[in-house]
Amino acid sequence: MTKIKVAIAGVTGYSGEELLRILLQHPAVEIRKIYSGRERGKSLNHIYPWTRSTGDLPCEAFSLDDVVGSSLDAVFLALPHQTAFQYVPALYKAGLRVIDISADYRLRQKKLYSEYYGFEHSDEAHLQHAVYGLTEWKRESIRQARLVANPGCYPTSIFLALYPLLKSKIFWEQGLMMDAKSGVTGAGRKASEALLFSEVYESFKAYKVQGHQHEAEIGQFILELGGAQHSFVFVPHLIPINRGILSTLYVRPKKKMALSEWHRLFVDTYRGERFVHVLPEGEFPETKFVRHTNQCHIGLAWREKENTLVIVSAIDNLQKGASGQAVQNMNVMFGLDEAMGLA
Amino acid sequence: MTKIKVAIAGVTGYSGEELLRILLQHPAVEIRKIYSGRERGKSLNHIYPWTRSTGDLPCEAFSLDDVVGSSLDAVFLALPHQTAFQYVPALYKAGLRVIDISADYRLRQKKLYSEYYGFEHSDEAHLQHAVYGLTEWKRESIRQARLVANPGCYPTSIFLALYPLLKSKIFWEQGLMMDAKSGVTGAGRKASEALLFSEVYESFKAYKVQGHQHEAEIGQFILELGGAQHSFVFVPHLIPINRGILSTLYVRPKKKMALSEWHRLFVDTYRGERFVHVLPEGEFPETKFVRHTNQCHIGLAWREKENTLVIVSAIDNLQKGASGQAVQNMNVMFGLDEAMGLA
Amino acid sequence: MTKIKVAIAGVTGYSGEELLRILLQHPAVEIRKIYSGRERGKSLNHIYPWTRSTGDLPCEAFSLDDVVGSSLDAVFLALPHQTAFQYVPALYKAGLRVIDISADYRLRQKKLYSEYYGFEHSDEAHLQHAVYGLTEWKRESIRQARLVANPGCYPTSIFLALYPLLKSKIFWEQGLMMDAKSGVTGAGRKASEALLFSEVYESFKAYKVQGHQHEAEIGQFILELGGAQHSFVFVPHLIPINRGILSTLYVRPKKKMALSEWHRLFVDTYRGERFVHVLPEGEFPETKFVRHTNQCHIGLAWREKENTLVIVSAIDNLQKGASGQAVQNMNVMFGLDEAMGLA
Amino acid sequence: MTKIKVAIAGVTGYSGEELLRILLQHPAVEIRKIYSGRERGKSLNHIYPWTRSTGDLPCEAFSLDDVVGSSLDAVFLALPHQTAFQYVPALYKAGLRVIDISADYRLRQKKLYSEYYGFEHSDEAHLQHAVYGLTEWKRESIRQARLVANPGCYPTSIFLALYPLLKSKIFWEQGLMMDAKSGVTGAGRKASEALLFSEVYESFKAYKVQGHQHEAEIGQFILELGGAQHSFVFVPHLIPINRGILSTLYVRPKKKMALSEWHRLFVDTYRGERFVHVLPEGEFPETKFVRHTNQCHIGLAWREKENTLVIVSAIDNLQKGASGQAVQNMNVMFGLDEAMGLA
Repeated sequence: MTKIKVAIAGVTGYSGEELLRILLQHPAVEIRKIYSGRERGKSLNHIYPWTRSTGDLPCEAFSLDDVVGSSLDAVFLALPHQTAFQYVPALYKAGLRVIDISADYRLRQKKLYSEYYGFEHSDEAHLQHAVYGLTEWKRESIRQARLVANPGCYPTSIFLALYPLLKSKIFWEQGLMMDAKSGVTGAGRKASEALLFSEVYESFKAYKVQGHQHEAEIGQFILELGGAQHSFVFVPHLIPINRGILSTLYVRPKKKMALSEWHRLFVDTYRGERFVHVLPEGEFPETKFVRHTNQCHIGLAWREKENTLVIVSAIDNLQKGASGQAVQNMNVMFGLDEAMGLA
Repeated sequence: MTKIKVAIAGVTGYSGEELLRILLQHPAVEIRKIYSGRERGKSLNHIYPWTRSTGDLPCEAFSLDDVVGSSLDAVFLALPHQTAFQYVPALYKAGLRVIDISADYRLRQKKLYSEYYGFEHSDEAHLQHAVYGLTEWKRESIRQARLVANPGCYPTSIFLALYPLLKSKIFWEQGLMMDAKSGVTGAGRKASEALLFSEVYESFKAYKVQGHQHEAEIGQFILELGGAQHSFVFVPHLIPINRGILSTLYVRPKKKMALSEWHRLFVDTYRGERFVHVLPEGEFPETKFVRHTNQCHIGLAWREKENTLVIVSAIDNLQKGASGQAVQNMNVMFGLDEAMGLA
Repeated sequence: MTKIKVAIAGVTGYSGEELLRILLQHPAVEIRKIYSGRERGKSLNHIYPWTRSTGDLPCEAFSLDDVVGSSLDAVFLALPHQTAFQYVPALYKAGLRVIDISADYRLRQKKLYSEYYGFEHSDEAHLQHAVYGLTEWKRESIRQARLVANPGCYPTSIFLALYPLLKSKIFWEQGLMMDAKSGVTGAGRKASEALLFSEVYESFKAYKVQGHQHEAEIGQFILELGGAQHSFVFVPHLIPINRGILSTLYVRPKKKMALSEWHRLFVDTYRGERFVHVLPEGEFPETKFVRHTNQCHIGLAWREKENTLVIVSAIDNLQKGASGQAVQNMNVMFGLDEAMGLA
Repeated sequence: MTKIKVAIAGVTGYSGEELLRILLQHPAVEIRKIYSGRERGKSLNHIYPWTRSTGDLPCEAFSLDDVVGSSLDAVFLALPHQTAFQYVPALYKAGLRVIDISADYRLRQKKLYSEYYGFEHSDEAHLQHAVYGLTEWKRESIRQARLVANPGCYPTSIFLALYPLLKSKIFWEQGLMMDAKSGVTGAGRKASEALLFSEVYESFKAYKVQGHQHEAEIGQFILELGGAQHSFVFVPHLIPINRGILSTLYVRPKKKMALSEWHRLFVDTYRGERFVHVLPEGEFPETKFVRHTNQCHIGLAWREKENTLVIVSAIDNLQKGASGQAVQNMNVMFGLDEAMGLA
């Protein structure tokens, strides 16, 4: 089998490291190049000693010329926001498949970047070419895509919890509450006093309670699926663990059904999906159930008296919430078994 | 100063241990007796090596005769639910002040015990005498009380978040969502596979999503404060830390105000309180801010567009959520400075 | 390729779960059967929700008849000590390859079981047939073995640290000190108050300071490699993490060499090994470097003045310390690439 | 009672925070001033929300003029190494009692600072005036001291483990091994990628295996107590918890005794001590036993066959290892009950 030749740009972040972890075991992929400004000139075995049994590779500074000249099939961009869009036009032009893990191509409207991310997006052109990489939703477009905007971690956990409702055009009374909790790797690998072990361990907090940039992404898919004017509130929290997002959604749906019917709706929506699992009635997800996997687990409770559907979803923020889904998308783009190399 | 002579029944649970920790340093208290069926016959220094610098005490099996015959002023019951009510009538009759940390006297209606706790309550008589020990609310009654039913940990965190609204008769659109998260000591010290280190560490989950016994207690104070028919949904989660509860409440109030006005309402309600602190606008609580203290911290966000007030409260579940509040109540009952021995 | 058909007995322990995790991804293995007394009758997806993307399997009670009648090539015994030896004679006789993860066949002398494990070993016969499954040492015998006694977790970490010395007949002044630290999964999945999250989190301790059963195993390989009468002291400690063993050995060798020479000796000993990596001079292992891998990392310091070689080794106790090495041994027994299915 | 008026310089480090925590509850102390360059201009309640129930205080930039002009009795220096000695001469001259928590006055010989800490010490004069603040050893000198050099955390844990031997002139065969493990607050509060939550959680490592600056301090007290030429090896490790040091010492003593005799020697040495507790034979310390206390717990094992005494000691690195011992020393200096304000 000819292997897909890929590069990882930004290999020293947590998403980059997870991409490496998955792709090193992927039977149809050859990692040709790894890039990182910070660790350029060092070897992979030195940067990540856990790779010592899988061979070594030099880590280089990212350069468009080098990427374009390396006979690659695809490149994963695990770069900070506001960086990817500087390279995408050239990569796109060179005919490479690009899977961008940053937020730079997730939003369709340029102005949302200034509003939610605080920067001016200079590549409006490719915003239109990018396919939003929520695989279960956009699979058909991803197959043809040359540029995939891999979804955010929180939005993935929330999209998969809401999709069965949205797909069936079941909307809600004003005020859908999304209480989301994430492990610390979601904040990235950068020295910051607030993220020191001694500050995070033994504590739990809400953050960005007055607004988080992922709301733009969540609002966009609700809108696209017909939910204009159905409001929601999203509040993220920090769990003192490394990996995992658990989102608890409180929905007051406009339609009433018994729990068994809600359950059936969810099961039917995800029938045949390899990675989304609706747990049996009465069971609820735990982040350890999806840790180191590309799975999303969903549990449901129906509070008859309060007319509230409680949806709990769990993913691994570095897998289905980032690099796992990126590889799932690569599999789709290259016509491979969608689950190849994933657990 | 004559010291208050107290006993702790159930010293080997986490609440009992925390009572011990607080009372050993309390300048106006003498711990006369400690009881535990499980560790009877052992010495305190052996059970809790951290007490080695503060003197020793034998741990005895709990017996009514021993309690009644020990010239005590007060007894703290840190016993399992369904146990305390077997002893309270006799203790009450003997003239002892009783502070019960279990749930046995928190609910006014006997039938709620069968419904929410699954047992038949056999001491209906004293349910009427018990004062619900949410100090900031019931301070005046606690002063005279002979039996205090110390509130549950989750209900305390939620009561303090809601009280400014309830006190001002500001109610809400149907469906107040209470997303609560607790550290693991809340589950008690008992061997259980689900609470093993290796099961809990690195994971996060929701539990009792379809109903938790603390809903009875929450419903009761909403009702008593005039909120009949204002529904709520309460979902608890397990944080992999030892101590701390953070509750995030999503309220769609019937009254609209600017954030600064909500903030003022909260500040005014708690003016003069020693342990409840409304954080400055834009700041939100973290459980480490209240760890090992009897404090409750509250933060507010107002989502204008979604007409939602987000209230975040944090307490230490073993302090304000259990033993700290119990000592606060003891201070009130005995006419001491309410904050004595507490941080 | 015809797959190797295997069964896992004791799938509900941590070693059993890890075997499952590895073997489900192993390209040359088909898991035919999983056994567990405790969870018999349940399905794999229910017991371990993380398997939901990989298919389901019923969990059955272990029975010799069922194992023997299931056309298996190999069986992994992840049963408690003192259980495996009840089944091994029949499995052996039936021609199955047996990889026993318990301690039941690690020691050659029956009497050591009464001395160190406190039980009477009733299958002296097969003690002689068992090959001690420290792959890097016994590879040639494992190739032919029908019964492999998979090493203990601590002994593996210590063996790999000492082997370069022992192999070169470099012994030590009396008193080699072995200070070992293990994550909590090493203690197994069984309800015990001492292993509750709230007891272990935030703490660190030494245990079995006066003697640990693994000393028998350590003593045995030192003896077999010529180190009779060279004493050692082994003290284990509990790290509040799930996985990982880090052992720090303090050796006062009878031979003096510069650090670079010690380093070369270690590198030479492990040249060509797939899983044992001697880190560059000046680097030392961390358990996260080997987490979820079958690797062992070794770092060295030479304290010239104190004539002491400090050897630090790290493994994942569930992988190289148990199930990873078991699969490595299976690969060797069946003539596969030794690293197949391992990281 | 007239209170002792104190200032804390460096209140924003972990030792400074712990000093604050202890002194705010100390019945004989008034905290007059808190200093921190980093947070100057902010209020205490803002920097440490846990102080909200105990009153507020402005945080100022440290200035000699301000300290000297503030009618203080004592000043605690919780400043980084190489900073304290710039201020001590002036503070000393002004007649203030100084308790220095940095390393700047722990070593008697100026040249050790260049060798072990890599800086030139410019205040040789006061090195002679400083009393080494290991309270149990130097109590009499501390009573008169105007400058106390508070010991390092590791050295405290090791000193207390060794003192019974050293005091009795029981030395050891070459090569006393000290395997020490510390919680993460020991590394201080400063943004560093290696100390990020996601890097430390789930991992364990040895560090500075080839030499740690605390060896100078350890060597100094061994020397002073008569142990010249008795070598030792010290290797520190990082425990993924916040607080606690557990040191395991492997001593091959020149004298042989039964465990009960060793035990008696330790008990006798510490008879009457308020904070050092030799556990009963067969019991060993855990860091949680001393967490948030000023205690040191010690356990002993005697390995007859290997002629090795294993001494395990545990302290809280922020209490007996830093700020607790600093307050203990203050109590001694001012003639108070040595245990006042400590647990």
